[in-house]
Amino acid sequence: MTQATPSYAPTDLTVPTRYRDRATYDKDAVHAVLDEALHCTIAFQRDGRPMTLPTLHARVGETLYVHGSTGGRFALLDGEPISISVTLLDALVLARSWFHHSLGYRSVVAMGDARVVRDAQERYDAMAALVDKIYPGRTTQSRPPAPKELAATAIVALDLEAVSLKRRGDQVADDEADLDGPYWAGSVPLRTVREAAVPTGDLDPAIALPAALH
Amino acid sequence: MTQATPSYAPTDLTVPTRYRDRATYDKDAVHAVLDEALHCTIAFQRDGRPMTLPTLHARVGETLYVHGSTGGRFALLDGEPISISVTLLDALVLARSWFHHSLGYRSVVAMGDARVVRDAQERYDAMAALVDKIYPGRTTQSRPPAPKELAATAIVALDLEAVSLKRRGDQVADDEADLDGPYWAGSVPLRTVREAAVPTGDLDPAIALPAALH
Repeated sequence: MTQATPSYAPTDLTVPTRYRDRATYDKDAVHAVLDEALHCTIAFQRDGRPMTLPTLHARVGETLYVHGSTGGRFALLDGEPISISVTLLDALVLARSWFHHSLGYRSVVAMGDARVVRDAQERYDAMAALVDKIYPGRTTQSRPPAPKELAATAIVALDLEAVSLKRRGDQVADDEADLDGPYWAGSVPLRTVREAAVPTGDLDPAIALPAALH
Repeated sequence: MTQATPSYAPTDLTVPTRYRDRATYDKDAVHAVLDEALHCTIAFQRDGRPMTLPTLHARVGETLYVHGSTGGRFALLDGEPISISVTLLDALVLARSWFHHSLGYRSVVAMGDARVVRDAQERYDAMAALVDKIYPGRTTQSRPPAPKELAATAIVALDLEAVSLKRRGDQVADDEADLDGPYWAGSVPLRTVREAAVPTGDLDPAIALPAALH
């Protein structure tokens, strides 16, 4: 799949069994959700059971990266089937019936085989993307990794191929028969707020807050 | 395991390989995170691969419930190994080094075998919990499910036994050698905000906003 293709190819793995109209495979839309989400959940197999772990992710082009310790589980995932999903919750949808209560959301599910990254440049670039994911620009405002720190970090890549985005807006979808009922219906928008940055207690007071954090 | 036991028993599945000091098995603490989180990610196997799906969950006592259509994947999970995790993101942790950048979070991972709920009362109670999870009190402010709606809903239960909570606060954990460096360090608190409820466009204007939504 080349960069020029605007959409991921739907596959048996990524076409939902229900609400197919909520699914899209548009790359720009998928990228936007992956980039906005600050954490993901990765699933992998262990002893024949699926295991889930929440973690930080970052996207570089058509590859998703997560990282962990070389002594941890991620280092053992090379070639293993994994799934990574992210979710942005946008609204609570309060319908006139229990049945049509719902959530407004955007979620991306990606599947494939994990690749433990060995190439030094790709590892470095992935680490930079993960640091800048926490806050844009942090790579230039903090100390780059020492050889020991690089060696202690396992980077796992998932190439974006079997990927889908599902989304539901905040619209109420009540049954016709309920529209004249006595119940209030509507939505409650949700928003994630970044509050003002708080310096760590032992920070030299002469060090000013970086402009990006104002 | 009885209700009187204050903690889940750590198991091979739930003791993390890294940062064991971040893990806790205290039931009240686990319940609080499960209850605060508005969505979860469920992982299950399909054709030998782990699949992830974001969905709504609700806890009733020591059981976690998710729901889907009887025509969907959840209806097929009876007896299958699953994992459900939730994450609350509390802060961005901006350290003096790339390496110590982190997130402040609370996350719960639960594992076990799925149970598709057959008992009518348990199904009804789980549906009520899921509706009230979206917004407390909604079960009394909307139409209860009709038999057809009940029949169309698959409820999947996961008994809380192999469960752990991991948490990291917003503290910066830089290396001693970096403390005198030139870089700003601190944290950015994150908060999820519920904005004012918005009535659906076709709502009878005579129907007032329920007090719980003010």
